Amino acid sequence: MYENNVETVEIIEKKVERIVDNIDELVAQKKFGEIKKQINDLEPFDIAEVLEELNSAELPIVFRLLSKDNAADTFVEMSSDNQETLINAFSDAELKAVFDDMFVDDTVDVIEEMPASVVKRIINQADLETRQRINEILQYPEDSAGTIMTVEYVSLKKEWTVEQCFEYIRKIAVDKETIYTSYVTDAQRRLEGVISAKELLIADPKTTVGSIMTTDFICVTTDTDKEKVATTASDYDLSSIPVVDKENRIVGIITIDDIIDVINEEATEDFAKMAAVLPTDQPYLEQSVWSIVKSRLPWLLLLMVSATFTGLIINTFEHQLSLISTVLFGCVPMLMGTGGNAGSQVCVTITRALALEEVEFGDILTIIWKELRVSILLALVLAVSCFAKLQLIDRLLFGYDGYTFAVSAIVSLALFITIILAKLVGCTLPLLAKKCRLDPAVVANPFITTVVDALSLLTYCGVAVALLG
Amino acid sequence: MYENNVETVEIIEKKVERIVDNIDELVAQKKFGEIKKQINDLEPFDIAEVLEELNSAELPIVFRLLSKDNAADTFVEMSSDNQETLINAFSDAELKAVFDDMFVDDTVDVIEEMPASVVKRIINQADLETRQRINEILQYPEDSAGTIMTVEYVSLKKEWTVEQCFEYIRKIAVDKETIYTSYVTDAQRRLEGVISAKELLIADPKTTVGSIMTTDFICVTTDTDKEKVATTASDYDLSSIPVVDKENRIVGIITIDDIIDVINEEATEDFAKMAAVLPTDQPYLEQSVWSIVKSRLPWLLLLMVSATFTGLIINTFEHQLSLISTVLFGCVPMLMGTGGNAGSQVCVTITRALALEEVEFGDILTIIWKELRVSILLALVLAVSCFAKLQLIDRLLFGYDGYTFAVSAIVSLALFITIILAKLVGCTLPLLAKKCRLDPAVVANPFITTVVDALSLLTYCGVAVALLG
Repeated sequence: MYENNVETVEIIEKKVERIVDNIDELVAQKKFGEIKKQINDLEPFDIAEVLEELNSAELPIVFRLLSKDNAADTFVEMSSDNQETLINAFSDAELKAVFDDMFVDDTVDVIEEMPASVVKRIINQADLETRQRINEILQYPEDSAGTIMTVEYVSLKKEWTVEQCFEYIRKIAVDKETIYTSYVTDAQRRLEGVISAKELLIADPKTTVGSIMTTDFICVTTDTDKEKVATTASDYDLSSIPVVDKENRIVGIITIDDIIDVINEEATEDFAKMAAVLPTDQPYLEQSVWSIVKSRLPWLLLLMVSATFTGLIINTFEHQLSLISTVLFGCVPMLMGTGGNAGSQVCVTITRALALEEVEFGDILTIIWKELRVSILLALVLAVSCFAKLQLIDRLLFGYDGYTFAVSAIVSLALFITIILAKLVGCTLPLLAKKCRLDPAVVANPFITTVVDALSLLTYCGVAVALLG
Repeated sequence: MYENNVETVEIIEKKVERIVDNIDELVAQKKFGEIKKQINDLEPFDIAEVLEELNSAELPIVFRLLSKDNAADTFVEMSSDNQETLINAFSDAELKAVFDDMFVDDTVDVIEEMPASVVKRIINQADLETRQRINEILQYPEDSAGTIMTVEYVSLKKEWTVEQCFEYIRKIAVDKETIYTSYVTDAQRRLEGVISAKELLIADPKTTVGSIMTTDFICVTTDTDKEKVATTASDYDLSSIPVVDKENRIVGIITIDDIIDVINEEATEDFAKMAAVLPTDQPYLEQSVWSIVKSRLPWLLLLMVSATFTGLIINTFEHQLSLISTVLFGCVPMLMGTGGNAGSQVCVTITRALALEEVEFGDILTIIWKELRVSILLALVLAVSCFAKLQLIDRLLFGYDGYTFAVSAIVSLALFITIILAKLVGCTLPLLAKKCRLDPAVVANPFITTVVDALSLLTYCGVAVALLG
C-alpha cells in the first residue's frame, strides 16, 4: 500500500498512457464520475495530454470535470487549437474563472496564438490593471525579454526588517510566480538590490533588507534578446532574472520555467534552420500540411536552383572527362557526399559553439589553424582508403576495369583537396555569418553543402583534366 | 552614481571583455592589488573566463587572489585543464579549502575529468562521509540520474510543525544546494512527501508538515536516464527532482542548474550526431586536434564507402545514359542534392520532435499521411520549377541544347518521385530507429542522405532508361 504513493516518472507515464487509451471509451459510456476521479489525480501537463484525445464536442464537457486548481494550470499546458475550442465553448463566467487563475505572462502566451475575436473576449473579462499589463507586454519587440517576463514578483523596501519582509511575503505569496528571490526597489520602482529567500531565512529577523541585499546583481533590459536571457541564466546559474527598463525601473522578472522553454525553442529553431526549414514555434503534429509546405519550400527551391552551377560544371567538363574515362562520373556522388559531410561536420560544430557562446569571431585564427591540422589528417586517411577502395572493391571485386591506377589516384587526390577545402570553408562560414549579423545556423547546413558541392566538382574535374586531359 | 550599481548583462559582458584584454598586461606588471580588486568583483563564471587567458605559471598566482567565497565557485566553472593545473599547484591545505566549499556533485564532475593521481589527492583530502558519497555517485551508470544528483538536500520529519521545520532549515540552509523544496522522509529514509518553502511559509506555524505536504510528487530513480530527467523537469515545471533507489529511499535531488546543463548537452550531442560527428562533452576549443579527428573520422569513412553504391548505380547505367544524352549526368548533383535536402528536412524535424517527446512511434501513420500530402505538394512545385529552369536557364540562357523537352521532362519526373520517396523515408527512418532502440539523431542526418542518394539515382536512371532507352 505504502509504495503506491511514490510514483517515479516512469510509473506516471504508464498511468497516463492507460488513461489516454481509455478516455474515448469512458466518454462514450458517459462515465464522467470515473473520468473526473482519474484525470484530477494527474499533473496538469498530463491532463492536457489526455484532453488532446477528445474532439471539440467532448473537450468542454471533460474540461468542466477538472477541479478549480487544475483548470487554469491545465489550460496553460494545452495546444492552442484546444484552447481556442474551449474559449469558444466557455461562458463569460467560466472564461473569467480560468484567466483569473493564470499569470499574466501565460495569458499573453495564449493571446498571441488566438484570432482577434477571441483576444477581444479574453481582454474584456480581465480587470483594468491586468489589461494594461497585457497590453504593455504585447508591445515589446518579438523575441525580447519583455515578451517572456512575469509581472508577478515580490518587491521589498530596503528599510524593512527581515521580519517585516516575511510578514509581507506570507501575505502576497499566493499570487506571485516565485517568492524565492525578492527585489528591493526605491520609491521610483528602480531596482536597488536583490535578496534570496535563503538569505532572508538565515539573516537576523531584526536587520533591515537594505543592509543584507546583494547590490551587484545581474539583470536584463526589456529589449534583451530572449536567447541572451537563456545563456545568461545558464551561465550564472540564476533561477530568475529581473527585467528593467531604460530608467532601471524593474518591470518584471523571468522565471526558470520560461527560460527552459526558451532554451528548448532556440535549439529546435537551430535544428530546423540547419535542415533548411524555416522555423515555426508550433509542435510538428499541430502544424497544418500547408504551413509545413510553406516552411520547407523556399529553401528546397533555392538550393535546387543553386545546384545549376554544379550541373554547369559537369556539363562543361563532360566531354573532356568522358574522353579520359567514363567511370570518372561514377565517383562524383562519393566526392560530393564526402565533401558535404566533412563540411557540415565542422560547420554544425562551430554553429552550436557560437550559440552556446563557447567561441566568438575573435577565435577565427585559432579555429582555422585547428581545422587545418584536423583536415589534413582526415584527408590523408580518407584519400588512402578511397584509393584502396577503388582498387580492391570497385576494380577487383566488381571488375570495373575503368578504375585504373591513374584514375584511382586522381579521384583520391581530388578527395584529399576537397576535404581540406570543405573543412576550411565549413569553419569560416558560420563565423563570418555571425560577424555579418547573419544567422550561422542558416549558413551552416545546408548552404555549406551547395558551396562544397561546387568546390569538390571543380577540384575533381580540374585535377582530372590537368593530369590526364 | 546610482545607475552604476544596476548592471545589465550587456554592461557586465563589456566589463569582462575589458578585463580579459588587460589581464596579461596586469600580470606582467605584477599589479596584483589591481587584479584582486577587478576580478573579485566579477561573477565566478566570468572570473573563470578571465583565468582562461593565463598560462599555467600565472594561473595559480592569480587564483590565490580570489576571496574565499569566490575561490570554490570559480574553480567549479573552470575548464578541466585549468582545474588540473591548479590542483597540481595547490598545497594540501589549499586543495582541502577549495573542495570543502564545493557540493559533492560538483566534486564528482571535477573528478570524472581528472587522471588517477589527481583523483587520489582529491579523495584523500575529503572527510570519510564525503568520500563515501563520492564513491556512491561514481558507481551509478553513465548518463543516469544518479551521476548528476546532489546529496545536499533538506529532509524533514512529518511530525514536525512548520515552526520546527523553519528552525531546522535556518540551521542547515548554508550547506544545502536548495532549501526551496524539502523532502519528508520516514525512519528508513523512504520518501513520504514533498513540500515547498512557499507552502511552508503560507501554512500555519503550528500545523505539522505531514498534514500539508504533497504526497503525489514526481520523482526519478538513480537509473533514470538524465535526458528523461530533463524532459520531466521541463514538462512539469519542476525546479528540483528527488531521486530514489529501488526501496524508494531518497538518495539525492537534481537541481535546476544541472538540469539546464543536461538540456544543453543533449542538444549539442544531437547536433553533433546529425552532423556525423561522434559527440564529446568537451567544448570545441578544449578538444585536441587528435580527439576531433577521432570524433569525425569514423562517419566520414563509413559514408564514403557506402557511397560505393551510388557509384555502382551510375557506372551500371552510364553506358545507356550517355547513349540517350550526355547532359543527363549534369543533373545528377541537383537531383541528389534536392533529394537529400528534402529527406533531411523531415528527418531532422521528426528526430527533434522525438527528443522533445512531441511525437512517438504510435504517431507513425499520422506522420506518414501528413508527409505524403506535404511531399506531393512540394514535389509538384519543384518538378514544375525544375522543368522551367532547365528550359529557360540551362537551355535558352546557357545554350545547352542537350536539355531537350524530353530530357527536361525526364529530369523533372525523376525529381518528383525522388522528393516523395525522400520525405517518406525521412519521416519513417527516425521513428523506426526509436522503435528499435537506436538513436534517431544518428539515423537522421547524414545516414538519410546516403539512402536518398541511392534512391534518387535509381529513380533517375530507371526513368531515363525506361522512357528513352
